[in-house]
Amino acid sequence: MTAPPFSVPGSRAEVEEGTAFTPRFDANGLVSCIAVDARDGQVLMLAHMNAESLRRTLETGEAWYWSRSRGELWHKGATSGQVQRVVEMRVDCDQDAVLIRVEVGGDGGCCHTGRRACFYRTVTLEPDDGRATLRTGGA
Amino acid sequence: MTAPPFSVPGSRAEVEEGTAFTPRFDANGLVSCIAVDARDGQVLMLAHMNAESLRRTLETGEAWYWSRSRGELWHKGATSGQVQRVVEMRVDCDQDAVLIRVEVGGDGGCCHTGRRACFYRTVTLEPDDGRATLRTGGA
Repeated sequence: MTAPPFSVPGSRAEVEEGTAFTPRFDANGLVSCIAVDARDGQVLMLAHMNAESLRRTLETGEAWYWSRSRGELWHKGATSGQVQRVVEMRVDCDQDAVLIRVEVGGDGGCCHTGRRACFYRTVTLEPDDGRATLRTGGA
Repeated sequence: MTAPPFSVPGSRAEVEEGTAFTPRFDANGLVSCIAVDARDGQVLMLAHMNAESLRRTLETGEAWYWSRSRGELWHKGATSGQVQRVVEMRVDCDQDAVLIRVEVGGDGGCCHTGRRACFYRTVTLEPDDGRATLRTGGA
């Protein structure tokens, strides 16, 4: 497919209630993508997709992101084996964010630090001095 | 509090494994925020927070976002009653996204379209012509 795969967003009513997938890319050509584990719904990671990653994800059934740090397409799991097979893609009301439910390959993990998911720390305000600190653990 | 509430991110090791919350704001001064329902883990919405929204969210225990469309701080539920009481805030490995587990006030909904959650449509490729279309329903 060489033509741009997605139509330009229409009116607000069309974006919110219509049947056309018309992603609203930001100034950098990206939408946010939340990946959740299809087994139990746990949020695994948040990343970004451009039009090409969205197209590849839909056509191949595996998650392709746009790496903002490396400035390149990123086939999740291509080196780690932690491929994300997309069971379902959803889009939000204003079509600037998608959510994918995935089955994770390899060791079932997601985060490059070795954890299953990227949200491995809680944020807490210290009562004495108001600093925001992190603790590892929890769901 | 008048001083900037969050320290500047340190090394990659400090960001990923340290105990300081040092959000990595994008060029617009924002991090992404995923809100999930504390009752069952359902993803309700994706929005954005700047430093002031993060500070208010942590200090008040209710979700404050930055509305990109309106260009202003947004106390979720201030008009609708759908206040999000924050049970827990988590941050991801590179500290450019947070996840909040919330108890929703009012009628328990979240989306301005009247649905409980914003991700009310699935994206499907039509087998005949490859168009990406939307269907309402599902979890």
